[in-house]
This record gives sequence, C-alpha cells and structure tokens, in this order.
Amino acid sequence: MRPSGRQPDQTRAITLTRQYTKHAEGSVLVEFGDTKVICTASVENGVPRFLKGQGKGWITAEYGMLPRSTGSRMGREAARGKQGGRTVEIQRLIGRSLRAAVDMEALGEHTIVIDCDVIQADGGTRTAAITGGCLALADALETLVQNKRLARSPLKQWVAAVSVGVYQGTPVLDLDYDEDSQAETDMNVVMTDKGGFIELQGTAEAAPFDQAELNEMLTLAKHGLEQLFALQKAALEG
Amino acid sequence: MRPSGRQPDQTRAITLTRQYTKHAEGSVLVEFGDTKVICTASVENGVPRFLKGQGKGWITAEYGMLPRSTGSRMGREAARGKQGGRTVEIQRLIGRSLRAAVDMEALGEHTIVIDCDVIQADGGTRTAAITGGCLALADALETLVQNKRLARSPLKQWVAAVSVGVYQGTPVLDLDYDEDSQAETDMNVVMTDKGGFIELQGTAEAAPFDQAELNEMLTLAKHGLEQLFALQKAALEG
Amino acid sequence: MRPSGRQPDQTRAITLTRQYTKHAEGSVLVEFGDTKVICTASVENGVPRFLKGQGKGWITAEYGMLPRSTGSRMGREAARGKQGGRTVEIQRLIGRSLRAAVDMEALGEHTIVIDCDVIQADGGTRTAAITGGCLALADALETLVQNKRLARSPLKQWVAAVSVGVYQGTPVLDLDYDEDSQAETDMNVVMTDKGGFIELQGTAEAAPFDQAELNEMLTLAKHGLEQLFALQKAALEG
Amino acid sequence: MRPSGRQPDQTRAITLTRQYTKHAEGSVLVEFGDTKVICTASVENGVPRFLKGQGKGWITAEYGMLPRSTGSRMGREAARGKQGGRTVEIQRLIGRSLRAAVDMEALGEHTIVIDCDVIQADGGTRTAAITGGCLALADALETLVQNKRLARSPLKQWVAAVSVGVYQGTPVLDLDYDEDSQAETDMNVVMTDKGGFIELQGTAEAAPFDQAELNEMLTLAKHGLEQLFALQKAALEG
Amino acid sequence: MRPSGRQPDQTRAITLTRQYTKHAEGSVLVEFGDTKVICTASVENGVPRFLKGQGKGWITAEYGMLPRSTGSRMGREAARGKQGGRTVEIQRLIGRSLRAAVDMEALGEHTIVIDCDVIQADGGTRTAAITGGCLALADALETLVQNKRLARSPLKQWVAAVSVGVYQGTPVLDLDYDEDSQAETDMNVVMTDKGGFIELQGTAEAAPFDQAELNEMLTLAKHGLEQLFALQKAALEG
Amino acid sequence: MRPSGRQPDQTRAITLTRQYTKHAEGSVLVEFGDTKVICTASVENGVPRFLKGQGKGWITAEYGMLPRSTGSRMGREAARGKQGGRTVEIQRLIGRSLRAAVDMEALGEHTIVIDCDVIQADGGTRTAAITGGCLALADALETLVQNKRLARSPLKQWVAAVSVGVYQGTPVLDLDYDEDSQAETDMNVVMTDKGGFIELQGTAEAAPFDQAELNEMLTLAKHGLEQLFALQKAALEG
Repeated sequence: MRPSGRQPDQTRAITLTRQYTKHAEGSVLVEFGDTKVICTASVENGVPRFLKGQGKGWITAEYGMLPRSTGSRMGREAARGKQGGRTVEIQRLIGRSLRAAVDMEALGEHTIVIDCDVIQADGGTRTAAITGGCLALADALETLVQNKRLARSPLKQWVAAVSVGVYQGTPVLDLDYDEDSQAETDMNVVMTDKGGFIELQGTAEAAPFDQAELNEMLTLAKHGLEQLFALQKAALEG
Repeated sequence: MRPSGRQPDQTRAITLTRQYTKHAEGSVLVEFGDTKVICTASVENGVPRFLKGQGKGWITAEYGMLPRSTGSRMGREAARGKQGGRTVEIQRLIGRSLRAAVDMEALGEHTIVIDCDVIQADGGTRTAAITGGCLALADALETLVQNKRLARSPLKQWVAAVSVGVYQGTPVLDLDYDEDSQAETDMNVVMTDKGGFIELQGTAEAAPFDQAELNEMLTLAKHGLEQLFALQKAALEG
Repeated sequence: MRPSGRQPDQTRAITLTRQYTKHAEGSVLVEFGDTKVICTASVENGVPRFLKGQGKGWITAEYGMLPRSTGSRMGREAARGKQGGRTVEIQRLIGRSLRAAVDMEALGEHTIVIDCDVIQADGGTRTAAITGGCLALADALETLVQNKRLARSPLKQWVAAVSVGVYQGTPVLDLDYDEDSQAETDMNVVMTDKGGFIELQGTAEAAPFDQAELNEMLTLAKHGLEQLFALQKAALEG
Repeated sequence: MRPSGRQPDQTRAITLTRQYTKHAEGSVLVEFGDTKVICTASVENGVPRFLKGQGKGWITAEYGMLPRSTGSRMGREAARGKQGGRTVEIQRLIGRSLRAAVDMEALGEHTIVIDCDVIQADGGTRTAAITGGCLALADALETLVQNKRLARSPLKQWVAAVSVGVYQGTPVLDLDYDEDSQAETDMNVVMTDKGGFIELQGTAEAAPFDQAELNEMLTLAKHGLEQLFALQKAALEG
Repeated sequence: MRPSGRQPDQTRAITLTRQYTKHAEGSVLVEFGDTKVICTASVENGVPRFLKGQGKGWITAEYGMLPRSTGSRMGREAARGKQGGRTVEIQRLIGRSLRAAVDMEALGEHTIVIDCDVIQADGGTRTAAITGGCLALADALETLVQNKRLARSPLKQWVAAVSVGVYQGTPVLDLDYDEDSQAETDMNVVMTDKGGFIELQGTAEAAPFDQAELNEMLTLAKHGLEQLFALQKAALEG
Repeated sequence: MRPSGRQPDQTRAITLTRQYTKHAEGSVLVEFGDTKVICTASVENGVPRFLKGQGKGWITAEYGMLPRSTGSRMGREAARGKQGGRTVEIQRLIGRSLRAAVDMEALGEHTIVIDCDVIQADGGTRTAAITGGCLALADALETLVQNKRLARSPLKQWVAAVSVGVYQGTPVLDLDYDEDSQAETDMNVVMTDKGGFIELQGTAEAAPFDQAELNEMLTLAKHGLEQLFALQKAALEG
C-alpha cells in the first residue's frame, strides 16, 4: 500500500499553469501533487562561445530550491557561494533533456535559458521541472514566432519526465517524498511523445534491481508519460 | 500624473496570503501590485555563536530574486558564486527591521530565519519583503506557542515598510518600477504600528531633496503604513 | 554627558590632509578624532560596460578596514575570500554619495575609483570616508584639468557626511565608538554644500525614534556639515 | 565498422595494476585501452557528521582529470576555484556505485575516500574509475583486516561498470573517445557480480533510443561486465 | 649610477615609528624611502589546530597592498575574492622569517598575527615588512610581559631583511622601484642580528648570476642589515 | 648517516621518461627516487593580455598533488575551491625557472603551459618538477619545429633544480622526505647548464645557517646539477 493511498500505476494530481509570472517569454507553474516548481524560459540573443558562428541555437537550464521549500531549511546556495552537487547534477539533466525537444538549426543563434525554481518540494522535483520546463520552452518558441524572429516554432517533439521506483518490493509510478526516501530503487525516465528514450537514470538505493523490475518500471513510466504529454499539449492549446 | 493612474497618496493593491507553502512555520505570499514575494519564517534551535549563553533569540533574513523575476534575466547568484551588493544591502535591512518587532529575551535561544524570495518584481520588493516577512514571523511565533515551546508570542509590535519618492517633482507613495526607475528621490520607511521609526533610507537619485520634500514624503509614508498594519493584523486574525 | 566630554552639537577634531600618498591623482588622510581613513581617487580611462558610448563618466567606491584598525583583530576580507555585508553596504553608500558631486557629462568617459581604507577606527568611518573621499575626488578632477584632459573641473557641488544619533535620550552629533555602540538611534546624513539631502540612513538600534528626534538630529547634522564643507574648501585652496 | 576495428561486443584491452603508488591503503592503475586512471583508497577514522554515532561507515569518491589528460588542455579546476558540473556528476556516480559494494555496518565508523585521477583520457573514464576504484577499495578493506581493525573484509559484492552505446546504428560495447564523441546514445551500466543493477545512466545524444536498442545494450553490458569481474577477482588474488 | 643617486652600498632613509595606531599590541610604520608599510602585531589566545596541546606558540603573517599604493591602481583582493600568488608568497616569507625570532616554547599557547599593509610602494615592501614586523612583534611580546601573561619576552633574536640586486652590472643594496623593475637579479636576504641566514631568495630576472655576484650581494646585504638591527634596537629602547 | 644510507653528495636514482602520456606536446615522468611527477607541456596560440602585440612568447606553470600522493590524504584543492599557499609558491617558482630556458622573442606569440602533477611524493617535488618540466618544454619546442611553426627550437639553455640542506649538522644533496622533514636548513638551487644561478631559495627551518654552510651547500648543488643536465640531454637525444 502506498502512503498516499494511490494505485501503483497512478500519478499524483498534475497541473500546468501557463503565464504564471509576467516577464518571461515562457512561464509555467508545474505541480506534481505538493511538488511545485516555477519554470521560466528566457530568450537571449546569441549563443555560448563554443557554438558561435555555426548558425545553431542553444538551450540550457538552471535549477534551484527556495531554502524552505523542504521540511527543514536548507542553506541558501547563493549565500554559501556555490551550487551543491545535487543541484548541478539536476540542472545538467534538465538541460540535456530539453535540448532534445528542439531543432537547433531552426532555432538559429538564440539561447533559451530554462530556470526551474522549486517553491515547495515533495519528491520528483526534477521530473516536474523537465515536464513544466518543456511547456515554458514551447511558449518561448511561440513568442519568437509571434515576434517574427522565427517563421515557425522549432519544437520538434515534446519531452516529459516521470519517476518510477521499487517501493516495498512493488514497482510504483511518480514517487512522492515519503516513498522516495524509502524506495529500494529510484529511476527517472525522460521520453519524447514519439516514444523514444532521452534519458534513463536508475539508482539502486537499498538493493540492486533486476531486469524484470527494470521492465516493469519502464512500463509504468510509459503509462505515466502518456498523461503528461496530453497535459502539455492541452495546456499549450488551452 | 503617475504612470499607473494612481493618486499620489495611493498604494497599489496589497494582499497578504498566509500558509502559502506547507513546510515553513510561517509562509506568506505578499503582493504589492505586480511585485510578488514569498516570505517564509523558519525556526531553528540555538543562536549564532556571538549570542550563545545569553538566553536571547535572534532573527536574520535572506533575500533573493528568481533569475527571471525581472524584465530581463539576471544571472543566478548561486551560479555566480556570490550574492550581489544590492542583495546583501537589502537582506541586512530586512533583518534589522524585523528584529525590532520581537522581544529577544522572551524568544529565548531560538533563531528565526526569514527568507524573502521575489518571484515577480515591479518595484518595492524590499518594502514588500519587510511587510510580508513580519507576518510570516508572527505566524512562526504563534507556532512556537502552539507547540508549547513558548508561553506567549514575543511579538512586541508590528513592523511594516513602504517606499515614497519624488516623481516628476511630486511626492508619491509606493512607487512601482516605472516610477522608481525615474524618480528623483527614493526613500524606504520602516515603522512600527506604534508610530516609531525603525529605518529611514532616503537616496537622491537625480537631484538632492530638501526638508520640505522630506516632510511630505514622511507624511505619505505614515499614511500608507497605516493600511499595511491593518492588513497585517487582519491577516493574522483571518 | 558624552563619554568624550563633548557638547551634544560638537564634532570631534577633524582634519583633512591632502597628498598623503604619492601615486594617486587624489590622496587624502581624513581624521575624525581617532578615526583615520586614507581616501585615494584613481582616474581610469573608460567606463563600465553599461555606460559605454554614452559620453558620460562614472564614479565608484571601495571600502576596507585594516585587520587591526579595530579593538580586536578582524579577519582579512582578502584572506576570507569575500567582502562582508557591512563593507558592501558602506562602499555602495560612498559611491552613490560621491556620484552626486560630479557632472557626469562634463567628466566624459573617465572612471574615478575612490578607495577608502580605514587605518584606525573609532566610530564614523563611513562619514569620514565620504567627507575625505570628496576632497580626494576634487583633487583628482583638478589633476585632469592640469593634464589638459578636461577644460574645467566637473565638480558641481561638495558632498560631506556626518553621523548623528540619540545617546542616552539626547540627540548628539558625530558619534565616536563609545557612543555608537550604545546609541538608541544612529543616523548618517549626507548633504551637499547647497543644502540638499543626498542620503539619509537612520537606524533604530535599541528603540524606535520619533519625528521630534528626527528633526533634532537633522538640525545637528546640518550644523556639523557646515564645518565639514568649510574644511573641504579650505583644504582644496590650502 | 568501429574506428578501432573492434567487434561490437569486444572491450578494449583492460588491465588493473595494484600497488601503483606506495602511500595509499589501496592504489590501482586501471587502463581501458588508452584511458588510464589512478584510483586510490584512503582510510580515515570517523564518519561525516550526518552519520555520527550510528556505528556505520561511509564511502565517498572524488574525481579529477590532469589538465592535459585530454587532446586539448583543460583549465585546472583547482586554479579556477571550482569543480565543473561534469566532475561533480561523475564523482557522485562513483561514490553511489561503490557504496553498494560494502556492508556499512560491518565497516564500522571508518570513511574510505576513493580518489580517481585520470592521467590519460580516451573515453570511458567513469566506468574505468568505478571498476578500478572497487579494486582499490577491496585492497583498503584487506588492509584494515591485516591491521586488526576489522575481523573480516566487509566487501559484500564486486561492483564494476562499462559503457555501451549506439554507434552508427549499431549497439557497441566499451566506447572509446572516437565513438563516444559521435555516438547516438551513450549508457553507463553499473552492476554487481551477482547480476543486479546498481546504476543505469543512458543519454540520447543525437537521437532517442527505443526499447529494442536498450535491451541490446544491456545484453552487451552484461557480457562486458563478466570480464571485468573476472579481472577484479584475479587481480585481488594475484 | 643609481637612479636615486645613491652609492651601491647605501640604503634609502629608513625609519621605524612605534605606536603608529592605537589598538594593536604592536604597531609600527616602517619606511624604506618612499615605501611605507603599517605593521601591526595582534595577540590572540590559543594556537592553530595542528599545534594544540603542545604548549607552544605560533606566529603568522598577512600581507596586503592598498589598491592605490602603486603607480597604477591594482584591483582590491577582497573584491576579487582571492589573494594573488605574489601576496601569498610574500606573507609566507614574512611568517617564516618572524617565527625565527621567537622561542615558541617560552611564548606558550598564544598566536601572534603580523599584518603588513603597504600604504605606499616603491620597491622592497617585503623586506620593509619583515624589518618593521619584527619590531611590532617585539612590542607585542613586551605587552604580554607588562600584562603579566609572560614572565619575560620570548624574543630570542632580531630578524631583519634587505634586498640586494645586480643593476646595470653592479651589485647594489636596497633597490627602489626604478631599480627593481630593471634589475638583472633581485635577492632578498633575511638574517638574524647574530649573523645567521634565515631566508635567501635570489631570482635572476634578466640574466643568470654567478658565484662572484652572489658573494658581492651577500656582503652588501650584511652591511645593510647591520644598520637595520641598530634601528630596531634603538626604536625599542626609544 | 643519512636515513637512506646515501653519501652526502649522492642523489637518489633519477629517471626521466619521455612521451609518458600521449596527448601533450611534451610529456615526461620524472622520478627522484620515490618522488614521481608527471610534467606535460601544452602549446597554446597567443599570449596573456599583458604581452599582446609584442611578438614575444610566454611560459607558465601549474603544480598540483594527487590527494593521496602523500602519507596521509590531503584535501583536493579543486574541491576546497582554492589552491593552497604552498602550491602557489611552487608553481610561481617553476614558471620563473623555466622562462629562463627560452628565448621569448624566438618563441613568438605562443604560450607554453607546464603542468606538474605529483603522483607520489617523497621530498623534492619542486626540484623534480623543474628538471622534468624543462625536458617536457624542450620536447614541446621540438614539436613546434617539426610542425613548421618555428624554424628552430628557441631553447637557449637547460634549466634544472636540486635541493640541498643541512641534516644533523651535515650538508647533504637531494633530500628525501625523511631528511627534509627534519633538516635544519633546506635550499632549492635552480641553475642553467652554463653555470648561472636562476633561483636560490634557502630557508632555515630549525637553526640559522652561516656562510660556510651556504658555500658547502652550493658546491653540493652544482655537483648534483651536473648529473641532471647530463640526464636531460641524454633523454632528449634518446
């Protein structure tokens, strides 16, 4: 039995709210249950030095948690003077995942920065950030079209992410904090709406997992991701 | 004429939303028009080293802006590895202001950290942070009473803040970004609900100001602060 | 009774020594009693990026204390790898204050850096730094005239600063360390020699202050500042 | 056809040299073809603060590359003042992987630090580091037994890692730099010698991968890991 | 011919002013011609961790230059967030040199920090700092005797330093900036008043130097150091 | 009697292995007994800003130690976020020493970075680094000739270094760790193969040294350096 009473293949209530703040080209509040992340997409002219002159665009991501987004207060990274290892790991994952959504040649020499800031954490912040970040990205690309800077949106596919894991011996979908902190295995699955894998990151926290568990988790993930892609598309049209 | 069409002595629409996030002992979303700041108050046992063993409490504040809370994206301070001078200046002001609200002996050896994170900026973030931070602080103190860690709340007075300035020759109350960026003078006034000044920070941006302008600005500030104290008290009782 | 035996409206002995060191375009030792600050003004070609191409100049300030300028040794900021919050706050105040003294268009694309280094501290280092820094700045501007880089000095007014406060219930002028560390209220007043306010920073340390105390403090400050302007002008002519 | 002429299921020449340097409790030079990593295991008394008093041990890893271990010189992280994101990501992976090899209760309050320093890079440094690091760890645990600090080695299983990927449409084992820099997909597989997965990190670099490719890659990985476990065991006995 | 018109074996005018600032246990302004350094000695209870419990004292030094102590302004190290390599090198030299002056067992578990801050630079700042720092140290040790914390001063010998070099083919004593910046060789010689070498740091800037030049330079250094020891002793008695 | 059983004028076994790693233009493993340092020389186009447009080249060095190159593990400098003072001091010494080997005009606007990374330490790492670094540098210069970027190698002389010291009252050559940690005096001597001194850094660790000891140490150093120059030349020709 899951602490939340959910079925093994049941996600939390998931919402995507567009235009959550007013300045960014794309701004989304994504909620996976009590996990709440503000994702903004900011368009900048030009690209990093290693890409200059190639006619291609770039997408990068930054991630942060408000100090009291968690049960006990974490030190503020800006005050400590450096981003922690977990933060760095997560923002690199978000960036790689979202780059897969876009045709970089069609984007041209623009950089889009996706900022994912967790205002309340309850497990699964990185998967929420990827899912909401892709919608903010789509919005920012539409803005470029509306501003006549691009002829059409270079979004080539939707990207979303969900976590799966093995909790008390049972594979489950979309772990919340109570499950995540005790799970034997935790895996983040990032896919495209066309069915391809973008990232697969599975970690055996307490016990190794085997091929059968891996297969069951992947099946659950695909099931959950179908819902997420539907929500993204509905939100953009909404 | 003010860009917003407001009267010189008129504040923006101001709201204080309690229990905005679920983990902190006090959590308030404060809105001064389009300026939106999440203020959380976190209670920690013990005090900083310089206060140890004196039986007194401590209150400190930290301030941050989400990178895209502003019109153009600012670099993330955690990524740059240091807090900027403006951030440091503001968080010191918030901390000093809120310490005036509390009887430190009655608080005992607890530290309360007020985190003020701007999710959308449109001028006046520091005054919003002080005003919302004091309500989050009051909530956290109530929590200590409910948890039997204190017999009664050591809040001795309310503290709130508002900006005033001289815009196109006219003293005005509660400047938004359009006014703030062009004002001749900008002053932040922090007071108690008993009528005392806690902090006064006036800066001549374009032209020096004189005693008559100072007096007019202080009158406007007192007028605006009366509304803020009423909102704080109503919110706590609400 | 003040610890120093001074009258409430009496400043400490104040001296301004020009050409204190030999390399800088302006170099002043300013002494407010036992508070001693070396202020140098360094002229650099060009301006910061945000001003480039506008034909205007820039003035900025940096502040530091020698580790043993104080009663007990403070850690060296260069060794700790960052400037403390108080340092940042003070150097921003000095910079804003001194920018008010100069016609930036007339200065043209030069940057003047004012370095204020405290070699002995006894209260009031920031007001001494502003007062001495303005003289160093005036000297540096004269140097630009003598070197034919400017036709005439772009100094448009003198800027000086003094502290006032409420000590044991009485408003007093130019607090030394003994008073400052126990004052109920501490206010720094920065004005021009034409009578305008540039900065007003009042802080209630122990108890809020009221309008009457504010008025009295401002009267004291204006009295003290008259002396400072006379000293600055005499020094430049001397 | 692979650039090296290897078969799809063929690893590079792999060697593990024990006692490569003289000071560390475990010291291994691991070579996967031209990739060469020095792995040392250092035993320290005590554990990090979050584990104190629980009677359990801790294993952590650090990773670095000599500046000219690569084709063009990289800036030295110590000189730049921070570890890059890739470094942080890799050392966290190594640490998590190697913690799975040891019974922490049996280790008791010791910390073992695994340092993995790349002296020559040609792809696959993280998988080489895990594979060689586990042997250094095993050696350090033996040292604790020989020194009578533990009754028997708390190594509960061997952990090794290998990369697999899709190169020009074909799943291949143990990618070198020429393949890695052009692969469509790159996956690092960490397993135990008992057949369980510890970590799975797959990234679609150029094109998403599908379930069939995933399955093929996992089969290749298991094949390669069998060789690695045999080498580890032979080395320890050797 | 030397730029200053001095003879090859002639030092600049050298003065040592005690009690230059009021807070430190020892405070000396040392002037080697236009080079001016404030040296303070601060006594702290206790010793660094690596010495705890051994009953011995410790002496360490820190060095800094005011940003405009030099011909063109240098960036402030506190603002850049790190001490430069030259600074680190110099303060380590000062610390090692002054530790040779004191009987650490007799000092007991006290730490003395020597801060050497250059307010005006004209070559030879490190030798001035050692020479003035030793006098500040002697003063601080006397303070410990006067305060009954030590029975007698643990100063076991005087330490002083002077530079020598080869300028236009001729060995010269106590180089000023004009010479130093063009010298073929520059050597700093630190000795005790009993005739022993403490540190010898010779650098061939433009051309290697030979044994004969080395011998000549050492003879000049000994000659100059005799004067410095006489000045130190006279100052302490003065 | 020396701990190693060596004669006072006897060096350890010294080897220089060229082409130790494959990517760098010059790559040397230098061994002074159990001290092992990898020295690589990397050629970069262009020069630092202060040299731009002068047609001259530049040589600089960086130094590091693997965390467990020593008897007890040292913290990794990259993880601590700064290079220690000893590291900075050593890499500046190496850089100055190796610049003496090359005709900078003939090198033209190239920068050569010498990385010296200690993989096993047993005393004398800086002298090994200079000696091995000069061979790596020579190799890199040859590469520039082979690649037709220079007509002939701008190496104008060989530079090598050795340590000497006073151990239990006797001057000895090439101290290992056991001697170094107990020596009364430790001196590093850097010379050219033409007999000139480049750097002389002598430090009295326990007791001052006198002129006679200095002379004896220099004689030993010259004796040792003859061997080193022979080894360098043989290696390059080998």
